[in-house]
This record gives sequence, structure tokens and C-alpha cells, in this order.
Amino acid sequence: MRTLNTSSLDHLAVGAALLGAGGGGDPYIGKLLASWAIETYGSPQIVDPSEVPDDALCVMTGSMGAPTVAIERLPGGDELHLALLALERYLGKSITHLVGMEIGGINSMLPIASAARSGLPLVDCDGMGRAFPELQMCTPSLFGILASPMVIADAKGNTVVIDSADNHTAEKMARLITIEMGAVSYIALYPQSGKSLKESMIPRTLAFAENIGAVIAHARAKKVDPLAALLEVTRGVRLFEGKITDVDRRTVHGFARGVVSLSGIGPDTGSTLKVKFQNENLIAEYNGIIVATVPDLICFIEPSTGTPMTTEELRYGLRAAVIGIPCDSRWRTDSGLQLVGPKYFGYDLTYTPIENFVKPT
Amino acid sequence: MRTLNTSSLDHLAVGAALLGAGGGGDPYIGKLLASWAIETYGSPQIVDPSEVPDDALCVMTGSMGAPTVAIERLPGGDELHLALLALERYLGKSITHLVGMEIGGINSMLPIASAARSGLPLVDCDGMGRAFPELQMCTPSLFGILASPMVIADAKGNTVVIDSADNHTAEKMARLITIEMGAVSYIALYPQSGKSLKESMIPRTLAFAENIGAVIAHARAKKVDPLAALLEVTRGVRLFEGKITDVDRRTVHGFARGVVSLSGIGPDTGSTLKVKFQNENLIAEYNGIIVATVPDLICFIEPSTGTPMTTEELRYGLRAAVIGIPCDSRWRTDSGLQLVGPKYFGYDLTYTPIENFVKPT
Repeated sequence: MRTLNTSSLDHLAVGAALLGAGGGGDPYIGKLLASWAIETYGSPQIVDPSEVPDDALCVMTGSMGAPTVAIERLPGGDELHLALLALERYLGKSITHLVGMEIGGINSMLPIASAARSGLPLVDCDGMGRAFPELQMCTPSLFGILASPMVIADAKGNTVVIDSADNHTAEKMARLITIEMGAVSYIALYPQSGKSLKESMIPRTLAFAENIGAVIAHARAKKVDPLAALLEVTRGVRLFEGKITDVDRRTVHGFARGVVSLSGIGPDTGSTLKVKFQNENLIAEYNGIIVATVPDLICFIEPSTGTPMTTEELRYGLRAAVIGIPCDSRWRTDSGLQLVGPKYFGYDLTYTPIENFVKPT
Repeated sequence: MRTLNTSSLDHLAVGAALLGAGGGGDPYIGKLLASWAIETYGSPQIVDPSEVPDDALCVMTGSMGAPTVAIERLPGGDELHLALLALERYLGKSITHLVGMEIGGINSMLPIASAARSGLPLVDCDGMGRAFPELQMCTPSLFGILASPMVIADAKGNTVVIDSADNHTAEKMARLITIEMGAVSYIALYPQSGKSLKESMIPRTLAFAENIGAVIAHARAKKVDPLAALLEVTRGVRLFEGKITDVDRRTVHGFARGVVSLSGIGPDTGSTLKVKFQNENLIAEYNGIIVATVPDLICFIEPSTGTPMTTEELRYGLRAAVIGIPCDSRWRTDSGLQLVGPKYFGYDLTYTPIENFVKPT
């Protein structure tokens, strides 16, 4: 057990931005909310999954919808709390522990704010190990754990409980309600016991994200290559370094879809990289050959500082390094790939783990 | 208190078809379900609103969505019960009485099935006194009573609880979920005390509908003019008799919208009537002059038998009588007309009570 203070949040926000794999929303807004909640209610306790009693009632919290809207319309801080109260009411039981839904992006921070507000301990784990666009894309789905009953709340005090035996249906209904709520909502979902949490969730991802942020800060302070340090801490693969020559971005069915094109510099001079994204980066093609696919993480970094770059920030002319990071091994199973593999996102590809790709020469 | 048996259902179904004012769905399917429930679980008790204790917990039940779909995909009988159980769970209280949402159409029958299934008494009242297309169009809305918390259930066992402080928002969210559930859902809503029920609901509409059906059957058996008998029992106004010359029907935003045109016969020879509808009949124009508007009821009847005709049944060449029936006085208040008056349906008209119109000569 440890206490999370506001100074840890800076590192965590940087690490969570990287693990967003281009999506998940900039954690900066989430950090403001988490800082405010810590200053107002005190620091939340962070507990290791191994410390959670088997009979605990653990609930995921986070936001759903367009991160761009969350940035324009800040959550008031009580929406998540309202969601927790409504879920307790429906379950007829008290929640004992909070957990994060996704460590990537803004949803790394909201559970911290919620834990501070509610006084409940936050378990150091999450359900994605990165960011994904849909709520059934959580490791508990692979263990037969339902997202339902789940609660959706908005800033106007509306709450909706969805109780479905199918996580895809829950996602569809929650998406419709979220759009009606103004494109962003605050959710409490995947109620599960401490026993099942230890099996179904990805452990210690808060510590992992914080460590990534610390490594980047350290490299910057010591003026050493942040990229090399990052690759070491993430067991990542260097994919490319270049200048952005084009960003083709469209909004399709509420998702930010598009392609980023880069022209190589340094060792990649004369080569190109194309990265296709849907909120998150999905596929990387080096000189037309695929070198990385979802569910592995494809991440853009500002090369001189190691600062992660979200898809929204990418612009013509910017310099960027692109790295690949292996996803959690749960996603590499057949059922994991069915849920979040390239085929689900519309690419007729067989998944190859990023460390097995051979970059074309 | 009385017991409702299957023979009462026939009259009730005919009366409810008339009070559907063209919409609400054909009660025939509802009658089958109610008959089945009565045969399986026994006859439900019907209680007068005056018999309901002030501290009772009364809940409305019915279906939402396209009646045409309910006809194609019959409810299994347990969807409404599932909705009641989920509402009890969320409220943390036991429901003591059921009430109907709308006496017009299929929703006259579903609460009977639900009362038989659950063993709860059904109060002889409803929230519309006719049929309307949206769930905030219930008299309790006029008394500040919330539709929320409300439950939506489907045949696959999905349930959704909506808790909103605004009945228009509840309607919008429930509509989205209903479409996702396959265009029809089963709902439990407007939880209220017995005390508020006595003020907010339209009393004795089950008895009224049953009486309408009995009067039509009696006129048919005695070979007397069913139209005259109907006008007497409903305090109605004879608007027109003619042949249908055109039915222009479109589906717009999930509603059946259109215009029925008639050419007069008998005393109306040489005149025309146009009836505009959106699920229910909204506006009647006699030779281009408005002679009836929503919320008063505009109803089509097969003239020789007195059988009510829903909008779906209207076809070129059919003979029809058209009558107007005064709506409940609650709808004629400013707040009532704001909720269900012609302006809400997009007609820039001031409401005139049907009995005050002068038919052009």
C-alpha cells in the first residue's frame, strides 16, 4: 500500500500519454482533476492487487466518449461519484475498491480523482494495459466477467444503469447514451470480486506508467537519449524516426480515423512510415510492409525530449520517433485477438507479435 | 375491486382500439398476451383509484417503440416482469400496484398481462386517456412526477435503468435504447405514491374503454346505428363520413407520418376531409378548414359495424366515419397543451376544444 501524491501525478500523466498509443485523450485534463481531488479530499491509497481481499467488491471507473469533448467541457468531479452511488444502489452492496479501466490517456487519472473523492482504495491495475476505444475491450471480458451492471452518469445528474449479459450490447447501449449525454459520460462498470480481479486485470500498470514518466524526466534532466531509456523500460522496439509529411484525419461514426505519413531522417533516410489510426494507432507500415499491429502499442514520441505525442497533436512538419511496445500477453491469446486484434478493426491481417517482425531493409 | 376475466378483454380491446386515435398499435396482440397471462396465472384484480392506499408504490407498465414490430416479434410475457423486478431492485422497495401508461392501443392490455403475471392489483386509470407517441406525454408529467427511475427491458434479458430529473431526457434515452433493442421494448416507469396517483392519473379509463366496446357490440347485436351509440358514450362529435381517396404514409424518425384524404358520402357528399397523423391522428381539415386537433381524439370507424380502424389499416377505397372525442381536461391546460398540443407536433395552431369548432357549410 502506498499513498499517491500530486508529484507522482506528473510522471504518471506522461507515462499514461505514451500508453495511450496515440489515443485515450491527453491525460493533462485528467491530471488537473486528480490534483484537485487530492488537494480537496486527500491522497488516495494505492493497493497492490495481491493486497485485495478475495471477497472485495471492485469496480472500474473512467470516462467514455470523445476526449476532445472532455477537454472542452471539464467534468465537475462528482459525475464519477454519482455513477458509483447509483451502482451501489443497484447492486445493493458497498463498493470496497476502485480500479482503472485503461491506463492509457485520461482514464489513467479519473480513477485517482474518484478514489480521492470516495475515500476508497485504488488497486494498481487496469483492464487494457493501454487505451482502446470500446468498453468490451477489457481483459475481464476474456474471463467471462460482465461489464454489467454498469452505470453511465453525466454532469446534469442523469444516470443510466445498463444490465446486459453481453458486453458488446452493453457497449452499444452505453455509446448511444453517451452521445445523447453530449458525447462524454462517466462510467462505473465490471463489478467483480477481489478474487477474480487478481486473475482478470493487468497488474501494476499505475506503477509502470509512473516509471515511464520518471525515466523520461530522468533522461531529460541528465541530457541522455530519452528514446533509448524508453525502449529499455517498455521492452519496446524502435520503428522509425522522421518528419510528418501528411495527416489525413476524418471523424467516422464518432471515431477519429486516419493515416499519418512520415518521411525518414537519420538511419531511416529514404524510407517512409504510414500509421493508420482509429483514436489509437492500429497499424504501422514501413516502406509499405507492415511492421506493427494492434493490440501491440504504436507510439509517437517527440525525439529530443521523449514527450509522447497523441494523434491529435500530430501536424505536418513535426519531427517524431515511432516505437512499438508489446501488449499484455492476455491480448495475444485467440480470445484476446478476437476482441482487439487487427481483424476487429477491419484489417484482414494475422497478428504477429511486434518483437517477431523483421523490418525490411 | 373487481376481477377481470378474459370475456371483458374483448370489449376492452375494441374500446382501446378506438381510444388509440389511429395509433397505439392494434390491441389484438396485447389481448392474446393478456388472455394467456390470465389463463396461466389467474385473473388480476382491478381496483378503483379511490381504493389505493396513499402510501402505495404504483408503477406504470407498457411497451415502447413500433407497434408493427411488437406484432411481428411477440413479447414472451416475461419482459414486463423483468422490468418490474429491476425497478424494485433499483428502488429498494416492493411495488404494490400497477397502472397503465396509455389506454389507447396495445398498451391497454400489457398492464393486464403484467398484473396477472405478478399478482399485483391493477388500478383502473391511465396516464394519457388515449395514445401518444412519447413517454413524457403522461398526465403525471403535469404534476411534476418523474418518469424516472424507469426500466427498459427486452426479450433477450437486457435491462436498462434510466434515472433523469427531466422526462424529455428520459424519453430521448429510452428511445435510443429501444431502437437498439430492436425497435420495441417493455418498460416500467413513473413510480409514484397512491396519494399522487389519485391526483395525477386519469381515472376509470379501463371501465370507459370496456364500456365503449360493450356499446359497439350491443349496437351491432341490436342492428342499431353504432355511430350514434358511440357518440353518446364518448360525448363525441361526428366529423365526416366518406371513402378514402389517398393514404400518404412515410416513416420519419421512427414515426409513421402521413395524411389520409377522404371524399364525402351521404351528408358529406361533395366535401373532403384530410387527416394528418404521426402514429396517432393529429389534425382534421374539413374542406381545408381545421375542425379537430390533438390532444382531442380523431378516430376512424368502419361505419356499418362501429369497428375502430387504426391508421395502419386505412387503404384506398375503404369507407370510414371519422369522429372527434374530447380529451381529458388535464390536457386542455396551458401545461397540458405545451406537452401534447398542436405546436408540440409542429403545427402552428392554437388549440380549440373539439366541441367549440363550427363545421364549415
